[in-house]
Amino acid sequence: MESLKYNLLQSINNPEELRKLSKEDLPKVCSELRDFIIDSVSTNPGHFGASLGVVELTVALHYVFNTPYDQLVWDVGHQAYGHKIITGRRDRFDTNRKMGGISGFPKRSESEYDSFGVGHSSTSISAALGMAVASKLKHENRKIVAIIGDGAMTGGMAFEGLNNAGFLKSDILVILNDNNIAIDPNVGGMSQHLLNISKSQTYNRLKDEIWEGLGKLRWLGPLTRKAVQKMESALKSLLFHHSNLFEGLNFRYFGPIDGHDVIYLAQVLSALKEIKGPKLLHVITRKGKGFPEAEMNQTKFHAPGKFDKTTGKILSCDCELEKAPKFQNVFGETIVELAGMNEKIVGITPAMPSGCSLNLMMEKMPNRAFDVGIAEQHAVTFAAGLATQGMVPFCNIYSTFMQRAYDQVIHDVALQNLHVVFCIDRGGLVGEDGATHHGVFDMAYMRSLPNMVVAAPMDTPELRNMMYTAQLEGQGPFSIRYPRGCGTCVNWRTPFEKIEPGTARMLSEGTDLAILTIGKPGIFAQRAVKKLAREGISAAHYDMRFVKPLDETTLLRVFSSFDKIITVEDGVITGGFGSAVAEFMATTHCTSRLTILGIPDRFIEHGTIDQLYKICGIDTESLFRAALILAGK
Amino acid sequence: MESLKYNLLQSINNPEELRKLSKEDLPKVCSELRDFIIDSVSTNPGHFGASLGVVELTVALHYVFNTPYDQLVWDVGHQAYGHKIITGRRDRFDTNRKMGGISGFPKRSESEYDSFGVGHSSTSISAALGMAVASKLKHENRKIVAIIGDGAMTGGMAFEGLNNAGFLKSDILVILNDNNIAIDPNVGGMSQHLLNISKSQTYNRLKDEIWEGLGKLRWLGPLTRKAVQKMESALKSLLFHHSNLFEGLNFRYFGPIDGHDVIYLAQVLSALKEIKGPKLLHVITRKGKGFPEAEMNQTKFHAPGKFDKTTGKILSCDCELEKAPKFQNVFGETIVELAGMNEKIVGITPAMPSGCSLNLMMEKMPNRAFDVGIAEQHAVTFAAGLATQGMVPFCNIYSTFMQRAYDQVIHDVALQNLHVVFCIDRGGLVGEDGATHHGVFDMAYMRSLPNMVVAAPMDTPELRNMMYTAQLEGQGPFSIRYPRGCGTCVNWRTPFEKIEPGTARMLSEGTDLAILTIGKPGIFAQRAVKKLAREGISAAHYDMRFVKPLDETTLLRVFSSFDKIITVEDGVITGGFGSAVAEFMATTHCTSRLTILGIPDRFIEHGTIDQLYKICGIDTESLFRAALILAGK
Repeated sequence: MESLKYNLLQSINNPEELRKLSKEDLPKVCSELRDFIIDSVSTNPGHFGASLGVVELTVALHYVFNTPYDQLVWDVGHQAYGHKIITGRRDRFDTNRKMGGISGFPKRSESEYDSFGVGHSSTSISAALGMAVASKLKHENRKIVAIIGDGAMTGGMAFEGLNNAGFLKSDILVILNDNNIAIDPNVGGMSQHLLNISKSQTYNRLKDEIWEGLGKLRWLGPLTRKAVQKMESALKSLLFHHSNLFEGLNFRYFGPIDGHDVIYLAQVLSALKEIKGPKLLHVITRKGKGFPEAEMNQTKFHAPGKFDKTTGKILSCDCELEKAPKFQNVFGETIVELAGMNEKIVGITPAMPSGCSLNLMMEKMPNRAFDVGIAEQHAVTFAAGLATQGMVPFCNIYSTFMQRAYDQVIHDVALQNLHVVFCIDRGGLVGEDGATHHGVFDMAYMRSLPNMVVAAPMDTPELRNMMYTAQLEGQGPFSIRYPRGCGTCVNWRTPFEKIEPGTARMLSEGTDLAILTIGKPGIFAQRAVKKLAREGISAAHYDMRFVKPLDETTLLRVFSSFDKIITVEDGVITGGFGSAVAEFMATTHCTSRLTILGIPDRFIEHGTIDQLYKICGIDTESLFRAALILAGK
Repeated sequence: MESLKYNLLQSINNPEELRKLSKEDLPKVCSELRDFIIDSVSTNPGHFGASLGVVELTVALHYVFNTPYDQLVWDVGHQAYGHKIITGRRDRFDTNRKMGGISGFPKRSESEYDSFGVGHSSTSISAALGMAVASKLKHENRKIVAIIGDGAMTGGMAFEGLNNAGFLKSDILVILNDNNIAIDPNVGGMSQHLLNISKSQTYNRLKDEIWEGLGKLRWLGPLTRKAVQKMESALKSLLFHHSNLFEGLNFRYFGPIDGHDVIYLAQVLSALKEIKGPKLLHVITRKGKGFPEAEMNQTKFHAPGKFDKTTGKILSCDCELEKAPKFQNVFGETIVELAGMNEKIVGITPAMPSGCSLNLMMEKMPNRAFDVGIAEQHAVTFAAGLATQGMVPFCNIYSTFMQRAYDQVIHDVALQNLHVVFCIDRGGLVGEDGATHHGVFDMAYMRSLPNMVVAAPMDTPELRNMMYTAQLEGQGPFSIRYPRGCGTCVNWRTPFEKIEPGTARMLSEGTDLAILTIGKPGIFAQRAVKKLAREGISAAHYDMRFVKPLDETTLLRVFSSFDKIITVEDGVITGGFGSAVAEFMATTHCTSRLTILGIPDRFIEHGTIDQLYKICGIDTESLFRAALILAGK
């Protein structure tokens, strides 16, 4: 049955085999590929809508370009499932995002077809330009294509890449995959601009006529190339100065064209292939194409988890959810509550309203909650601008994306000592999204900054109280990092209490050794303490709550009471929380023995969060064993 | 004499007083202000050309807008001398950039007229948008103006800000100060675009007619406002779709206009003041305007040092220069030498070719050296793209600006383990540019990254050898940070020698204590060791050379031989090199006493580099004293 269903697809073990098919076969390949993605992702969760939207584009690109010699750079990369499936990973696709299996994103070490590792947005044009320049220096005739969504195009570095490419006049093709949505609906002046271009009737009519004319020409070859160029300039002069943003940057703009007509796509790509210089092809696609529920609920079906492929019903499997809510939900509910009490509060998210739950505030207080698009740098400085006027912005950014706004955090917020609250979501290991998405550097890179409070709640009620504390009059730059997923508290909606920055709390008394934790691993420590007690070891446990300021009073007490200390964090050991404790130990001449547990000095791949905790040696069992060793048992 | 010369200027102690003058007086105010800047900067060095270029704009802005209630946000800020002089800092202007004096950049703590602290590029639109949104939420009628150069406009975050402003439709005015140069001549597709707009004859003719018509109307008031709007749309429809990049982002575009006609500027600004929504005024200025040598040599006169204001001759005062060259010169000469030997090498700078000396390579090997514009993020990922094709990019970025590419360093280079060499210039304290420009965080934020080599040469021959080592086959991500200014070696052009990453070198033997240094402070340690010897203290000195990998073999030997250890670095203590040593001490259960010297946990202001070393306690004398204390003397 399966073999019949995937009749053509199963013959494609690499793009070379795809290129042997006649172009009339391409629609069937697309249909099979789409079915394959639906079959796979409905049972083995992953990103969904984005890959469905680019099925035709994927097939057309590999059909026309000589991959892997020619290089395709997928921006963000969660749309590259089709690419993976037709580049030799079909049979392994059921291991997608699983520990030891293939990655959910293109990854150089995984395949020669993955020309550039991605995960974060807006990198593809810069990377492609580097490849194009290298190709020229090496006197090669390698074609370089960047495929970037309209959401990713709003990221500043995409603009930097376009600007430089337009100047260098390198031979690259940028394909703008315009589905008018990122994870949440797109925002920004450019989004409107793209819509205007797409809807311009004069332009579209002329364009259609020209492309139709093109269709009558020989399909490939220099004739076509000349014809395209000629007609393109005719089109331009007809429209006088219908310049657009991309032409403003020296790109030759083509499109918009239908991204679901694979034969037409292949035809256009073939024609563009031989045109020199920087070119942009504007392709209109529909996220979730071919799966009606996904087309209708694009945000939900961005990464839906398991679902019924016949009914489209999303199968919730997060049983804990109703018991103990996610940190994200607590953030969303709490900011609404705080904003109700303090009219200075505003909320900011760079394109993650549903992911971080700021959408709750956006619904209830639309004029005080801002989705600024994929633009972390702008998000932070926008917050700084608001703070200069006495507002209290809560800027919610995923830990891994906060890396992109590091300079703005330093230069615009910390240096000016402005009262901006950073809610750093997805701190620590994030699981299946893997190496590009783990938020493990934040505590290290934030604690170096003067004026900055670096807080990390162990559970949801502390998140709530830290958010309450952060918005109080007199605070300055204040960061609160918390993990992806559920806390352990059912009754999290406790009355607000101020937590004085730089104060730890003791959760267990003990005599043999002290465990110092920051953030969620405190939960593991609580469990380990119980296990240790059963082995006759009395471990004290302190939830330090703040990496900065460190609770030096508590630490000095710990140093004088314990000659064995363990620190645990779900961030990098190098420069992180344990490092802060070590610094303080060294300078206070404490001679206790210290074991630092945390993320080791290598990039951590994908897997379930629990698998990764174990691999990194910070789960309950690892902590228990480290304590046994330190205690000499 | 002076009182006659600055007849009008001396009556302006704040913009309120400027606004009492009649508009016919404005040209004379400008002329005096320009002379004042020339007088000041010729004897007390600072930024020069940029401020001369915006004299008229500065006067017009403060004349028309109700500062400080209305907010002016100067991008970068080295053009804000005129702004400082007419906002109450004329009498203190001779303290510009001096320790305890006024800052060379706008700074919130210095004046209520400095609405936003700047120094790094491209932040103004985001900050201004935050202010505009706050103003609206607070039901104020505050006008917000961002003034940004065409160079800064190429930075990605400026685009992010424009894109969001166009979406929010906030009332902000962006003034594009287009002088077609940053520090070095501008590059990028946009630069060409701006030139095209400026040169478009049809557009300019029509524009002139319209603005002339406007001139005949009443100067202020609602009538003018309506007239401007009407004529502007007439102009637009006449030109059909002469859309440009900014209109593509929902900004209403006005201009280009002559930025040196102060009366006309004031007239236009008055008209624009009352127009709602996001607006951009394109102003053409000349960097160095009014000082012929500066107009002709714009790069040289960006920040020329002392010069003769009559002849324009730059007075070199850097006597050491011919003896021991700058680290920058050694970088520039060495990369040319290495690139001659290794054809894979390419050079990249984000808009600092003359500052970092990549201009040497750009002259000799123009197709292998790239100025990518003010675009650090792009610079890094562009380098990563090149590295995927087997090239060896040397990406030279100032330490303080590398903060802006932190995510790209992590996600595109370190994670993919690509062979990119980062030459981090201006590491450590930079002196007069002050808090926004000190490169003190880099060692802390780089050492957290897996795969990354973090090297810092003590002197120029080590820089040379580290650069040689970094380009060798088999290396991965490799960072080399070095300070601004001169080394101590006259004969720096030594034969290349590989320095194995992770190996320290012992420079002095000793028995009483060990001094571990990284980078330039090694020079201070050498001097301190001699002073200590005279006090009968025998100090060993190790130049560690690498923060990462740490030379653990040497460290273990030091730990076992010395119970007193001092670390010295010109970077932040929190998380830096000393912290790495403390981590290693703690985990190896070393009980030696450790003193960590470095930049304390606060932002350091401006002053001479030597003053700042002293303040931070890392100069020879401080090191000597710290050693005495540790030695118990």
